[in-house]
Amino acid sequence: MDERLPAVTEAELALFTDLYELTMLQAYWHEGMADEAVFSLFTRRLPESRNYLLACGLEDALAYLEAVRFSDDASAYLRTVGLFTEPFLEWLRSFRFTGDVYAVPEGTPVFANEPILEIVAPIGEAQLAETFLMNQVHYQTVAASKAARIVHAAAGRGVVDFGMRRMHGTDAALKAARAFHIAGVDSTSDVLAGRVYGVPIAGTMAHSYVQAFDREIDAFRTFARIYPGTTLLVDTYDTLDGVRRVIDLAGELGGAFQVRGVRLDSGDLADLAFGARELLDEAGLTGVRIFASGGLDEYEIERIVASGAPIDAFGVGTKMGVASDAPALDIAYKLTSYAGRGRVKLSPGKPILPGRKQVFRIEEGGRAVRDIIARYDEALPGRPLLRKVMEGGRRLPAGRDTLDRARERARDEIARLPDRVQGLAPAEPPYPVEISDRLRADAAEAARRVT
Amino acid sequence: MDERLPAVTEAELALFTDLYELTMLQAYWHEGMADEAVFSLFTRRLPESRNYLLACGLEDALAYLEAVRFSDDASAYLRTVGLFTEPFLEWLRSFRFTGDVYAVPEGTPVFANEPILEIVAPIGEAQLAETFLMNQVHYQTVAASKAARIVHAAAGRGVVDFGMRRMHGTDAALKAARAFHIAGVDSTSDVLAGRVYGVPIAGTMAHSYVQAFDREIDAFRTFARIYPGTTLLVDTYDTLDGVRRVIDLAGELGGAFQVRGVRLDSGDLADLAFGARELLDEAGLTGVRIFASGGLDEYEIERIVASGAPIDAFGVGTKMGVASDAPALDIAYKLTSYAGRGRVKLSPGKPILPGRKQVFRIEEGGRAVRDIIARYDEALPGRPLLRKVMEGGRRLPAGRDTLDRARERARDEIARLPDRVQGLAPAEPPYPVEISDRLRADAAEAARRVT
Repeated sequence: MDERLPAVTEAELALFTDLYELTMLQAYWHEGMADEAVFSLFTRRLPESRNYLLACGLEDALAYLEAVRFSDDASAYLRTVGLFTEPFLEWLRSFRFTGDVYAVPEGTPVFANEPILEIVAPIGEAQLAETFLMNQVHYQTVAASKAARIVHAAAGRGVVDFGMRRMHGTDAALKAARAFHIAGVDSTSDVLAGRVYGVPIAGTMAHSYVQAFDREIDAFRTFARIYPGTTLLVDTYDTLDGVRRVIDLAGELGGAFQVRGVRLDSGDLADLAFGARELLDEAGLTGVRIFASGGLDEYEIERIVASGAPIDAFGVGTKMGVASDAPALDIAYKLTSYAGRGRVKLSPGKPILPGRKQVFRIEEGGRAVRDIIARYDEALPGRPLLRKVMEGGRRLPAGRDTLDRARERARDEIARLPDRVQGLAPAEPPYPVEISDRLRADAAEAARRVT
Repeated sequence: MDERLPAVTEAELALFTDLYELTMLQAYWHEGMADEAVFSLFTRRLPESRNYLLACGLEDALAYLEAVRFSDDASAYLRTVGLFTEPFLEWLRSFRFTGDVYAVPEGTPVFANEPILEIVAPIGEAQLAETFLMNQVHYQTVAASKAARIVHAAAGRGVVDFGMRRMHGTDAALKAARAFHIAGVDSTSDVLAGRVYGVPIAGTMAHSYVQAFDREIDAFRTFARIYPGTTLLVDTYDTLDGVRRVIDLAGELGGAFQVRGVRLDSGDLADLAFGARELLDEAGLTGVRIFASGGLDEYEIERIVASGAPIDAFGVGTKMGVASDAPALDIAYKLTSYAGRGRVKLSPGKPILPGRKQVFRIEEGGRAVRDIIARYDEALPGRPLLRKVMEGGRRLPAGRDTLDRARERARDEIARLPDRVQGLAPAEPPYPVEISDRLRADAAEAARRVT
């Protein structure tokens, strides 16, 4: 068994794919099928507990399309598989993605059947990219969409991402910290996300630190000596007793006491927050904030906020990190046009809208009221969401975004959604998404051709 | 925003951690706290839909402990965070993991509160490793535990992993393919898992390939010319019509027809399999196997198998890949001893068993009947599950395993579990896990010391 840690090296990137992408690529190549294809990446339907999705993952999709190459190591491995011809393996060495990409920018709310991105390229190039593009856009959209609900529930209170230890692998932890920040989460415990993306990093202390001292107050005193403005974890033995030890420490330190917060991590967080606030206030420590964590999701946060509990910020881990109520989307990457003709499939429950498309978002009084999915060349009222981000395999300025800009976009775009769509309960009625008459006609015609 | 693709490079490995691990590490260092700590990684309770967990992830845990270093880049980044002193950053440059590790080997069934691994090391070293160890052991155990149920439901039929496109990031897709194979899944579509781990790779064709041709039979003919023994996807337009086109192709090719299978990917798979089998058999194609995929999980597979539907193998994707019914475990990494004294915490619902431990599995007539969690130095009847796999930061022979050996172990160990525990329904009664009298006494004593 190899001993190795990084998930995927640059040299292996092209092997991050389903085997059939490579066998189809070879089949296209041997048949000389290199006409222009359009592939559309979209979600067939929203999970029951999502009123919208927050598109995310475009940055990695474009970085992949720019970088994907077959290294010597990749070619050598493929030779051992026994399915590939020498001329094809030789051709792979010059493989590049040369196509165009249209996409909604990261941080855009999207709905069922709306393309998140569309690839226009020689069919084999677009086919190979399927697995990586889906893998990244899927999870990052899953993560951003969940986080947007948590930020909504927190109603202006701080939210910190604590999820990396139970997310699915290292890539998920890194990409989610970024996606969460785009969705409005303030900071992350994930140091690598700070290094790589500049997401603000934050943290407090663990129970193990408190346990390593014979007395809880000794742990608090020692930690606060090194980190005067820290947040102290008070629930290792008994939460309110822990708060009393913080108050004892304040008495010891007098004016030197600069501790900024206490963290509650178990029990009835709302109840304990009321109790902790009362103790702190009675001791004159009105500036010490209360931070809560432990199994939180958007529903629990909404309940706590509604209770009026004096909690200033939430640490949210596992349930946001794995999006436990909707860990996967019914996302698809489908051929919608080849050689200039719209393509569909007719498998039950899995319809495809043919050709390149555009989504128009109709707004009234600054609020989105409905979307129309149309042919790319239609001119309809409303704001077009898809834009060209890559041409001939090279990123266009519209394909370069900063994290801050994506975060601001998400904030602004979510605020423009109807209130019922922003909320946690299933929107009644759901946000309306129409299909234009011309696109409907194209779909009927494409279906006729294959039946 | 950085443009970069691999999730974590070797140089960044030490930054794959929660910020508090680093602030605690510095606090321990500045206080000269370097006594031996024991940390235990275990699951507090099983998800409702799991009768056991299949331990996985040890390989990456050990590789991390051998490899973790603070690179120049990591130190330079930490300097910018503003929390770390120069002497500490200087000391980090020589940081190595020097401790011992005890673990159950990959592919071992485990239950609530049983240590999957225990780290014995100077407290800071063991603390830093928390995030990575949990991240890897958690997800790989989530994945292996789900896959074991799917393999059980398939009752000897083949199972292929198709999940990489909707798993959470690249690392999940790679590690899960390996974990699934340990749990008994035959092969994966993930080419990179073939390259890195030697997991057998497999694949068929996508709807896009069929759509790119004007007629379905043209797609079949072309693909079978290049891959004579392939499996053809028959549901792009109408499943049974697709089967008829395969039969037409057999007629065209005569003795040259070598297609090994058809794949059904939508609709009522059991019904369609009966219909497809009848058509194929009538045409004399009794050797063409039926492969089914599309939204499968263990319950659906069990239902299909019970129906007697003539399906020879299953492709399982999203629901196995994200373990949709239990995407996270209540896993913890807790300090159980420091400076020779057992440590506990008393937070509600989150008890800790103090000290180093051993798990004894009691068997009767070749079947496991109960486990006992004990102190490490007890000699109880039954087979001890934890073994020393690393000493002084170096792997021992017991810490080196092959993928095949882990897979065989899983098969043998699962077969030794009671039938009710192997099955999909909640085991009644659950598998019994006891705590030894001496460990119980240690826990009471440690709790007394902190109250």
